[in-house]
Amino acid sequence: MRALRLPAWKSEPELVEVPDPEPGPGQVVIKVGGAGACHSDLHLMRDFTGGLPWAPPFTLGHENAGWVHAVGDGVTGLEPGTAVAVYGPWGCGVCERCRLGVETYCENPAGAPVPAGGGGLGLDGGMAEFMLVPDARFLVPLPDGLDPVAAAPLTDAALTPYHAVRRSWAKLPPGSTAVVIGAGGLGHLAVQILKATTAARVIVVDTREQARESALRHGADHAVAPGERAAGEIREATGGRGADVIIDCVGAQETLALAGAVARMLGDLTIVGIAGGALPVTFGSPPYEVSVQSTYWGTRPELSEVLDLAARGLIRAEVTTFPLDQAVEAYHRLENGELTGRAVIVPN
Amino acid sequence: MRALRLPAWKSEPELVEVPDPEPGPGQVVIKVGGAGACHSDLHLMRDFTGGLPWAPPFTLGHENAGWVHAVGDGVTGLEPGTAVAVYGPWGCGVCERCRLGVETYCENPAGAPVPAGGGGLGLDGGMAEFMLVPDARFLVPLPDGLDPVAAAPLTDAALTPYHAVRRSWAKLPPGSTAVVIGAGGLGHLAVQILKATTAARVIVVDTREQARESALRHGADHAVAPGERAAGEIREATGGRGADVIIDCVGAQETLALAGAVARMLGDLTIVGIAGGALPVTFGSPPYEVSVQSTYWGTRPELSEVLDLAARGLIRAEVTTFPLDQAVEAYHRLENGELTGRAVIVPN
Amino acid sequence: MRALRLPAWKSEPELVEVPDPEPGPGQVVIKVGGAGACHSDLHLMRDFTGGLPWAPPFTLGHENAGWVHAVGDGVTGLEPGTAVAVYGPWGCGVCERCRLGVETYCENPAGAPVPAGGGGLGLDGGMAEFMLVPDARFLVPLPDGLDPVAAAPLTDAALTPYHAVRRSWAKLPPGSTAVVIGAGGLGHLAVQILKATTAARVIVVDTREQARESALRHGADHAVAPGERAAGEIREATGGRGADVIIDCVGAQETLALAGAVARMLGDLTIVGIAGGALPVTFGSPPYEVSVQSTYWGTRPELSEVLDLAARGLIRAEVTTFPLDQAVEAYHRLENGELTGRAVIVPN
Amino acid sequence: MRALRLPAWKSEPELVEVPDPEPGPGQVVIKVGGAGACHSDLHLMRDFTGGLPWAPPFTLGHENAGWVHAVGDGVTGLEPGTAVAVYGPWGCGVCERCRLGVETYCENPAGAPVPAGGGGLGLDGGMAEFMLVPDARFLVPLPDGLDPVAAAPLTDAALTPYHAVRRSWAKLPPGSTAVVIGAGGLGHLAVQILKATTAARVIVVDTREQARESALRHGADHAVAPGERAAGEIREATGGRGADVIIDCVGAQETLALAGAVARMLGDLTIVGIAGGALPVTFGSPPYEVSVQSTYWGTRPELSEVLDLAARGLIRAEVTTFPLDQAVEAYHRLENGELTGRAVIVPN
Repeated sequence: MRALRLPAWKSEPELVEVPDPEPGPGQVVIKVGGAGACHSDLHLMRDFTGGLPWAPPFTLGHENAGWVHAVGDGVTGLEPGTAVAVYGPWGCGVCERCRLGVETYCENPAGAPVPAGGGGLGLDGGMAEFMLVPDARFLVPLPDGLDPVAAAPLTDAALTPYHAVRRSWAKLPPGSTAVVIGAGGLGHLAVQILKATTAARVIVVDTREQARESALRHGADHAVAPGERAAGEIREATGGRGADVIIDCVGAQETLALAGAVARMLGDLTIVGIAGGALPVTFGSPPYEVSVQSTYWGTRPELSEVLDLAARGLIRAEVTTFPLDQAVEAYHRLENGELTGRAVIVPN
Repeated sequence: MRALRLPAWKSEPELVEVPDPEPGPGQVVIKVGGAGACHSDLHLMRDFTGGLPWAPPFTLGHENAGWVHAVGDGVTGLEPGTAVAVYGPWGCGVCERCRLGVETYCENPAGAPVPAGGGGLGLDGGMAEFMLVPDARFLVPLPDGLDPVAAAPLTDAALTPYHAVRRSWAKLPPGSTAVVIGAGGLGHLAVQILKATTAARVIVVDTREQARESALRHGADHAVAPGERAAGEIREATGGRGADVIIDCVGAQETLALAGAVARMLGDLTIVGIAGGALPVTFGSPPYEVSVQSTYWGTRPELSEVLDLAARGLIRAEVTTFPLDQAVEAYHRLENGELTGRAVIVPN
Repeated sequence: MRALRLPAWKSEPELVEVPDPEPGPGQVVIKVGGAGACHSDLHLMRDFTGGLPWAPPFTLGHENAGWVHAVGDGVTGLEPGTAVAVYGPWGCGVCERCRLGVETYCENPAGAPVPAGGGGLGLDGGMAEFMLVPDARFLVPLPDGLDPVAAAPLTDAALTPYHAVRRSWAKLPPGSTAVVIGAGGLGHLAVQILKATTAARVIVVDTREQARESALRHGADHAVAPGERAAGEIREATGGRGADVIIDCVGAQETLALAGAVARMLGDLTIVGIAGGALPVTFGSPPYEVSVQSTYWGTRPELSEVLDLAARGLIRAEVTTFPLDQAVEAYHRLENGELTGRAVIVPN
Repeated sequence: MRALRLPAWKSEPELVEVPDPEPGPGQVVIKVGGAGACHSDLHLMRDFTGGLPWAPPFTLGHENAGWVHAVGDGVTGLEPGTAVAVYGPWGCGVCERCRLGVETYCENPAGAPVPAGGGGLGLDGGMAEFMLVPDARFLVPLPDGLDPVAAAPLTDAALTPYHAVRRSWAKLPPGSTAVVIGAGGLGHLAVQILKATTAARVIVVDTREQARESALRHGADHAVAPGERAAGEIREATGGRGADVIIDCVGAQETLALAGAVARMLGDLTIVGIAGGALPVTFGSPPYEVSVQSTYWGTRPELSEVLDLAARGLIRAEVTTFPLDQAVEAYHRLENGELTGRAVIVPN
C-alpha cells in the first residue's frame, strides 16, 4: 500500500510503497477513511532532532478514523466495515491511569506500544491506505450520522479542548464567563463545546479579526482583540469580577499574562497551547485559588462524548479534503496559512 | 392598598383593602410587578384544614418580583426602583443550611419568619400592590433584559426544576439521556433548562399530545406517551441502557413506577411533583445505584442563575397577565385548565 | 487437584478431584492462598433452584487471593510467585462501565466470562488448589505486608462497604454523623473504613450486644440497640439533625424504616444488605433530598485502595482459617453462627 | 478597658486604656478568652508603611475566642456567656462569595467592615478585655470540650491548612500521598488534619530536625530534609509516581521548586505560605494537570468543622499562654524563636 512517511528528523515526508499491515492478537487493521494534518506534524518535520522517546521513520497522521478491515485473535465485537475513530494517545493499558481511560497520563510508558506516542507519533499513523491499531480498546465506533472524514480531526482538535472544558464544568453555571484565547483550530471548537455543554458566556480573544468573527458566528458572545486594553475590556464585560474559566489555546508568554490578569478568584486557568510561555504563580498572583494547570489531549471516554456532540450537529470542524498523493501539498498550504479549517487526507 | 387574601382554610380568596406595609430594620417593601398564580395555591384554598405550621388569613402569591419601594434601617445596596425577584422559601438565615442559601432545608424553622413557609405561604405574599420582604437577602436584582412580569413565575416554576436538574449535571455529559415526566409548567421549563445547561438528549413523557408537541418545540429530542409501551420505547431510544436521569414532575404512583423502570444503573431519579406517589426502593430495584430522592424548590444562588438564563433568552415561561381585580378569575381558569402558560397577576 | 464444588442447586458442596486449569491467551492461573467462605454461598447451596443466568456445577469461593502460578499468551507484568488478590465481579471489560473498572455494573453481560457472575459464582472459584482467572485485569498485586489469607475476605467483605462509604465522602466532613446498621462481617469493616477515611462520628446499630461492643472497640463512637427508642436516640446524638449518611448492611424492612427515620435532609441512605426489605420513597419521606440507593460490591480501582488500607493496618478483618478438607465444616459453623470473623479456606 | 494597640506603622504595640466597646444593631461584644499572637502581626509592626487598604491605630489580635458579653438589637440565639470563636476574615456579607461563607474572597470589599481586613487587621482585635464583632454571623459557638484558649489559634493556624487540605480530599484516597512542606505552626496542623480526615500517606519536609520529629509524632509517615536529594527521596517513597497533593506552608522559591519537582500528574500543588516565591507554570511543567493555586485562610462553615476536630481531640495546637500585660513579651519571644507552639494572650 502507499503511505506518507517521515523518513528522518529534519526531512520532508515521502509517499512510498510499504507492506500492508497484518493484525496480531488483540490488534485491528483499519481501512483509513480520513487522517487529519496537524500543525504539530510540521514540528516533527522541521524542529526536532531527537529528545523524544521515539524517532522516524514512521507513517504520519495521528488524527484518524476509518473502517474495521481485519481483526486479530481475541478481538470481539468489531465487525469488518464498522466505522470507527482511533483514540490517539496509546498508553500501557494497565497502569492506574490507563485503566480509567486516561492514557495521556500513562504512568508506565515503557509498557506502551511506544513511550509517550502513538500512531503517527513514533508508530505508523493514518496517512496510508491501512493502519495497524495495536489494541481494540483504541477504537470507538462512530455514531450514526458521522463519517470518518468528519470524525478524524475531532480525535485531536476537538478532544483536546473538550477535555480542557470538561474539567471546568462545575465552575461554569449560568452567570459565569469563559474566555477562550486563540480562535484557531482548537479554539473555535472550544467555543462550540462551551456553548453546547454549558450556559456560560463565552469571550474569545484573537489577534485576527477574521478569526474573531468566525468565533462569533460559532456562538461566542463577545470577541476581544489582544493588547493593552484587552484585560480591561474583559473585566468590564464580567461586571468587574473577571473570568471564571480561561482556556489558553495559544500558551505564549503574553497570552498567559492576559489569562492571569483576567482570572476571577476561585477560577480555572488552563494551558492548552504549546507556544512555550510561562505564568509565574505566587501566593497573591493570579488571584487567590485560581487553579493554573495544563491539559494534554483527552481520555477515551471523552472521545465518545465528542463524537456524540458532532453526530448531533452540536460541534463541527471545518474540513478541506485531499487525496493521499496531495498530502505534502496539504502540509504546505497548512504551513503557509492558506487553509480554512482542518486538512484531512482521504487515502481510499 | 388592595390585596388578594385567603381568609380561612376551605375558602375563596377575597380582594380587600389592607394597610400599606412598612419596612422594619433589615426589611424591604417592594412594589409588586408580578405575582404568579400557582397550582399549589388551589390546594391552599381547597384541600387544607390544618396540618401546616401556619394558617390563613394571609395575602396569596409566592412567586413574586417587583421594584424596591422602601427599605428599613440597616439595608444597604438596594436603591428604590431597583427591579428585583423575591426568593420565596424563607428560612432562619442562621443555620448551617441557610448560611449556604439552602433556605428550603432550614434546620431551625422556629427561627424563620414563619416555619416552613414564606410570603404567600403563611405570611403576606405578592398579590397586592406592595409586599413586605422580611430580609434584604431574599431579594435578587433582575439582570438587564428581564422584567418583573417575566421574572415572577421563574422564582418557583423555573427554580424548582433548575434545582432538580443542577444536582444531576455530572451525570449528563454528551451521550447521556434525561427523561422529563410531565410537560406542564415545571416540566416544559425542565426541558429548556436541560437543553441550555447540558448536551444530554431529552425525552419527555406526557399524556397530552399538545404538551408533548410543545415540549418538542422547546427542544426535547423525543416525546413519549405514557402507557404499557412507554418504558420499552424509552429503553429503545437509549440503546437499551436506560435513562441517566429522570425528573418526575408529576410524582404519581404510575409515573414513579415508569421512572424506576427506565432508570439506568448509577443514574438519578428525582421526585419533583407532589402527586403523592411512592416508589419502593430495594437492594435490587430500581437498578443498582440509582439515586432516588425528592427535591423541593431551590437555593438563593440558584435563583440568580435562573434569572441569568431567562435574561439571555435561554429559558422562557409562557405567561398570561391579569390585573389584580381579575386574580380570582385567573385561578378559576387555572383550575379549569383553560390557561396556556403561567398566570401572572400584575397589581400595579 | 482437589476442589470444593457445588454439584447442583439444593445440594451440599463436595470435595472432588478435577484437572488442573491451564491458562489460555490473556488468562492467569493462580495458586490459591486463601478463599473466603461467605454467607451468600449458603444461599447458593440452600435457596436457589434457578433464576440466575448461571448454574452449578462450579467450584465455590468468590473471595480469593493467592500467587501467580502460570500466565497465558500476551500476559505481561505478572511474574510467577507474585501475591495477588482477585477482583471478583467479572464483566465484559469493554462496555462503558467496565472500561472504568466498574465491572459490577457491566452493561454487556453477554460479553462477560459468565453473565453477572464470576469465579465461585457460575465459574470455578478459589476453593481449590488452583484457580483460573480469565483476564489479567482481574488481578491486583498485594502491597507489602499483606498476605493472601488476610487479603481474600477483603475482596468482598471490605470492598463492598468501602464502595458504599466512598460514594458518601463528600457528605462526611468533620461534624457529620454516619450510621452503620448491622455490625456483622460487612458492618464492622464499614466502621473501620469510616474511621480511617473520614472524621465523621460513627453510630452503630445492632441487635447483638456483643456486636455493638466489638464495633465500639473498632472505633465506633456510639452504639444503639434497635427498637422503639433507637430513632430518638440517634436523633438526640446528632443534636436533632439526623444522620448525614446511613449504611444499611442488613437491608430488612425494619432497618430501612429506621434508616429513613433518622436521615438528615440532603443525606445519603445506602442499601448494602440483601435481607429483602423495601423503603417507600415519596416527595416528603424520607426527608428532602435524602439520596436512597443500593450499592453492589465495588470497583477494581477501589480494591487497590482497600488493600492499601489493610496493608497499613487501618482496617482488619478477623479471620479463622480452615484447610480445604474442612471447608464443608467451615460452612456448617458459619451457618450455625459459631464463627467469629470470616472463615478463610487455605487450600495449599 | 486595657488593649494592646498598634499606634502606627513601624512601631511597637502599646498597652493602653480605651473605652469599653458597645454593640450596635446586629453586633456583638465578646469578653475575650484568648487571642493568638501570629507571625503576621510582626510584619504589621515591622514591615508595612502603607499599601494596605487600612492602617493603625487598632488593637492587635486576629485569632480570637471568648464568651458573648452583650448583643445589639436584632441579634438572636446568642446568650451572654456562650463560648464562641471569632471567624476572622470579615467580608461584605452580601456578595456571591460571602453568601456562601467564603468571606476571604469577598468581591465587594468596599462593603466590608474594613476592606480586606477584620478584627486585629485594621479594626480592633482581641488583645483587649472586650472585642466588638460587627456581625453575629462571625461567631461560631464552641463545641463541648473546647475552651477559648485552645480555640483561639485554631481560627487561623488550623483553619488555613484545613481549607488547603479540604480542597484536595478527592485526590487523597487510600494509596495516595500528601507532602507538607514546612512543619511549623500551620504545617504541623496540616499533618494532623490530613491524618484525621483522609487515609493518605503524609510526608513532611522541614529543615529543622526537631520539627520533623515533632511531625512524625503528630502522625506523619515519613520526614525528609530539604536539599538536593529531597525530590528523589519523595519520588522513591511514592513508588516513582510523585505526590498527589503538596501543601507548601512556606511558599519560598526553593520550596515551590521542590513542590513542582515531586508533583504527580493530575495532582494538587497548593501555596499556603507567604514567603514570596514563584513557580513558573508552563504547558509541560509541573507535570500535566497539576493544579497550582494559592489558598488564603478559610470559610465560615469550615471553622465549625475545625472546631469539631479539636473538640474531639483529633487535632491540637500547642499553646503557651500569657496575660495581657505580657503580650509584648510574647511577641518578643515569638520573634526570637523562643516559643514552642502558639502564644495565646489571655486578657481576662
